[in-house]
Amino acid sequence: MNSKPVTRIKKINMYKISIIGYGNLGFHLVNHLSETGHKITQVFTRDKTKTRISKNKIDFIDDLELLRTDADVYFLPVKDDALKEVAKQLSLKGKIVAHCSASVEMKVLKNCTENFGVFYPLQSFSREVEVDFKNIPILIEGVNKETSSVLNDIAASLSNEVIEVNQEQRLAVHVAAVFANNFSNYLFSVAEEILKKENISYKILLPLIEETVRKVKEHAPSKSQTGPAKREDDKTIQKHLKFLSNKKELKNLYTIITDQIKSKK
Amino acid sequence: MNSKPVTRIKKINMYKISIIGYGNLGFHLVNHLSETGHKITQVFTRDKTKTRISKNKIDFIDDLELLRTDADVYFLPVKDDALKEVAKQLSLKGKIVAHCSASVEMKVLKNCTENFGVFYPLQSFSREVEVDFKNIPILIEGVNKETSSVLNDIAASLSNEVIEVNQEQRLAVHVAAVFANNFSNYLFSVAEEILKKENISYKILLPLIEETVRKVKEHAPSKSQTGPAKREDDKTIQKHLKFLSNKKELKNLYTIITDQIKSKK
Repeated sequence: MNSKPVTRIKKINMYKISIIGYGNLGFHLVNHLSETGHKITQVFTRDKTKTRISKNKIDFIDDLELLRTDADVYFLPVKDDALKEVAKQLSLKGKIVAHCSASVEMKVLKNCTENFGVFYPLQSFSREVEVDFKNIPILIEGVNKETSSVLNDIAASLSNEVIEVNQEQRLAVHVAAVFANNFSNYLFSVAEEILKKENISYKILLPLIEETVRKVKEHAPSKSQTGPAKREDDKTIQKHLKFLSNKKELKNLYTIITDQIKSKK
Repeated sequence: MNSKPVTRIKKINMYKISIIGYGNLGFHLVNHLSETGHKITQVFTRDKTKTRISKNKIDFIDDLELLRTDADVYFLPVKDDALKEVAKQLSLKGKIVAHCSASVEMKVLKNCTENFGVFYPLQSFSREVEVDFKNIPILIEGVNKETSSVLNDIAASLSNEVIEVNQEQRLAVHVAAVFANNFSNYLFSVAEEILKKENISYKILLPLIEETVRKVKEHAPSKSQTGPAKREDDKTIQKHLKFLSNKKELKNLYTIITDQIKSKK
């Protein structure tokens, strides 16, 4: 047996895609979609200064009147508040049009085309930080099979984790993400505030935070709960509440989360 | 110049150390202190089954009457509740005795010796998970200079981050750790619960959680806050509260944290 190993290439359909919006997500979509082999037809941004930082040779436009209709798919990575306004200006009959928002209904796009949907990558993007799209879950939703199928193709070309969801599920994911991401960051900032008063850097907590995250990679968070509330160690809880007695808001938050952890036992 | 590179060895005093308590922390202390070059004189554990899983050849005792007085330092990695009881049984005049608790006053040890203190590694330990002590902050407190100095020596032999604190500061660190670690894990479990109802695995949130942690390694959490509350995006907040309308406790928690984030603007 001397045959050479065969590299199997998964066939992925490539599309002509226009991106309307060049914020943090738009920026990364443009880069990664073109790297993956899709053709970026046009990119719309009102802010011309942003076009200077693009690595790629791109047909930037700053007026939606200049939007060509020869792309297959139009992505709208724009702010939630702007979606309605932008949708009003688009007439893309027969084309696939998807917004990228966590919590806006897809029917905001219903006057643009009959093939509307959602393409929502579950990550927080910054322009300066390179992302590994392979590990970013992409949630898709399409008004019909054709739309879902094309959005699925494009998502699968970027990521190993594509999930078809309905509107309720997408909203659930967003609420869950707010708890897991925005609110946990707020708790880190509470810790920062407490330590700052004692002249100690919040950075001493980083190994502990990393260990918490390491654990939830292996076990469900509901199974890895530790701490005084979980142990029902009321002596320690009382010491902590006394420590927080001059910080009414934090004491309130401590009490509520402690009670909720206890009630889950 | 053909001289060989010189490896400079930092001189660290090595001690004879007995460990009273062989839970998760005791286990790791025994391993790491002996690897570092200290001599483990004895280890006390009531639970003889635990001695079988030790990799090292150790003089285990299960009766405090058998505790020898030829060690220099005695560590007490035992549960907060047990500290008082164990301390009552120790008469170690002239020796250094330190407990390893986050929130118990050091004077719980005052009848054991005149040289009492605290040796508190800021990490959550599991027996199965190897730890890198070099990155674990160790908080020390000593009733006198000699005690502080010895505890500092031992801590510095294990970790790059040794912090001398007073009792108030140690309590502050513990409260901060509860917010940053136990409470953030609870928020992850809330996210898990929300997603479970929609048949979606909490694991889709892991890249987002990791990104949150990556950010606080670079910037203070108070500077990296994102999300609907930070943006004062009340439309999204209202959608989320409506989604949570049947989950009274979670709705309450969402409202409180959202209001606190808003009030920090």
